[in-house]
Amino acid sequence: MTYREQYEADKAMVEEALKGAFRDRAPRGDIYDAMNYSLLAGGKRLRPILTLETCRLCGGDPMAVMPFACAVEMIHTYSLIHDDLPCMDDDDLRRGRPTNHKVYGEATAVLAGDGLLNAAFETALAGRAGLEPERVLEALDVLARAAGADGMVGGQTLDMAGEGRALNQADVEELQRLKTGALIAAAAEMGCILAGGGAEERKAVRRYASRLGLAFQIRDDMLDVTGDAALLGKPTGSDARGEKTTFVTLKGLDGCAALVEKLTGEAAAALEGFAHPEFLISLARSLAGRMN
Amino acid sequence: MTYREQYEADKAMVEEALKGAFRDRAPRGDIYDAMNYSLLAGGKRLRPILTLETCRLCGGDPMAVMPFACAVEMIHTYSLIHDDLPCMDDDDLRRGRPTNHKVYGEATAVLAGDGLLNAAFETALAGRAGLEPERVLEALDVLARAAGADGMVGGQTLDMAGEGRALNQADVEELQRLKTGALIAAAAEMGCILAGGGAEERKAVRRYASRLGLAFQIRDDMLDVTGDAALLGKPTGSDARGEKTTFVTLKGLDGCAALVEKLTGEAAAALEGFAHPEFLISLARSLAGRMN
Repeated sequence: MTYREQYEADKAMVEEALKGAFRDRAPRGDIYDAMNYSLLAGGKRLRPILTLETCRLCGGDPMAVMPFACAVEMIHTYSLIHDDLPCMDDDDLRRGRPTNHKVYGEATAVLAGDGLLNAAFETALAGRAGLEPERVLEALDVLARAAGADGMVGGQTLDMAGEGRALNQADVEELQRLKTGALIAAAAEMGCILAGGGAEERKAVRRYASRLGLAFQIRDDMLDVTGDAALLGKPTGSDARGEKTTFVTLKGLDGCAALVEKLTGEAAAALEGFAHPEFLISLARSLAGRMN
Repeated sequence: MTYREQYEADKAMVEEALKGAFRDRAPRGDIYDAMNYSLLAGGKRLRPILTLETCRLCGGDPMAVMPFACAVEMIHTYSLIHDDLPCMDDDDLRRGRPTNHKVYGEATAVLAGDGLLNAAFETALAGRAGLEPERVLEALDVLARAAGADGMVGGQTLDMAGEGRALNQADVEELQRLKTGALIAAAAEMGCILAGGGAEERKAVRRYASRLGLAFQIRDDMLDVTGDAALLGKPTGSDARGEKTTFVTLKGLDGCAALVEKLTGEAAAALEGFAHPEFLISLARSLAGRMN
């Protein structure tokens, strides 16, 4: 299978699992509609694919960790819903569709986000049969720390506080490490943990994912300047309008391109010790050149 | 020790543990200040005390389950922060102090709620050393299901949808079972699970907690009509202003008092098989007559 075929096969399995996540739940007002609206809105599914593929990398069965892959995507989705709220970034459009609060109202959007964050833990716990309890606990621990105030929530707090203020490169790297890097690293590390990966394997996977995550964010900042709004499914230029300090304002477009190249090389090098790192190396290279 | 002394001793231990929950975290903007502002605002600490005392009831060491007791209180606190938001109940006062968003702004209040929900899982997972992994997973499973869209989040969704509409008693009972009952039942069941309680003990503890939780909510509705705003730390009459159907509008004050009495008797009866149910029975009786 080519890299692209493998990616599409993984993505299709993730979509199928996400579609079934709340299938057996009785309706509670419109909460599950609102949760599914954002969860099933497409997207790259990068984080769950990382969980599946680092599990495979470390000798595990990707299907066995699908509930944890879905859990990461639920946390990612909840963060988008809350970030889009009027009191945060006040965005009307996400992945080419009206944002959650535009469709369901602010109250339901807050609750849909809460519901998805919580559902991440519900889903992983409900899907733990057949996995080593200690590994499950360790994976949940990694996930919870990455998503919380010392991770994604803290990163969003710094992002809100930083708008309109000048930040230096260290500030921006720290902000992005928390806001997007931590969850991407956790997605990758969880697959490795659940497959029974040892300390060295975990360290290598974390190194890979941290470089990939930072390159991903730098590419995001570049696309906000040079990207095609139709391809991206959201307006470009939002960073400039919000007077945000980004990697582009700090390093320029050429500096960013060089940095993405360097980080992608480091990500690939981190996986040298594994027998079959091909897919994950191709993934890093593909993300470095992505147009959306 | 008298019931009151035991309650105060438990409460003091819970306060101490909550104060230390984020002590070793580096600041991330004002997120930890905002989280602590609501978490350390006092309150009865009913839910964590239930976890400690059902653990003791089933032969466990209450101190060993303190991280899980704190986790429940974090979830309870996050739900109050989000419920108070302008897009939800739009409340300015909580426990006699300005609500979180009044002090920190809406964006930080949303994030503080997110941070506390997530911190519940972080805290329980970080405090799992020395406990049986399978019991920890089972307790987390119970907690996550109670807090999610089939529990508290679903209850708040129904509550928002029900304002200004006529509900019957079954609707109100279902709403309250989800919104407040589920988390109270989970708090109690977790202590029993972590202490190694068997299926029969878990069933009895759930029965106790479900009766206590419903009585608690009915008493809450009564106090919104008859209570003293200064004692309650919040304005009374909010249900009437919000045109909410409550147990008082359905059954009248006398009917509610009789129902609280009946449920409290059932709660006490559920614990008959245990050697030392005295504290938990006194707790149910005390809550039935509470003035705040």
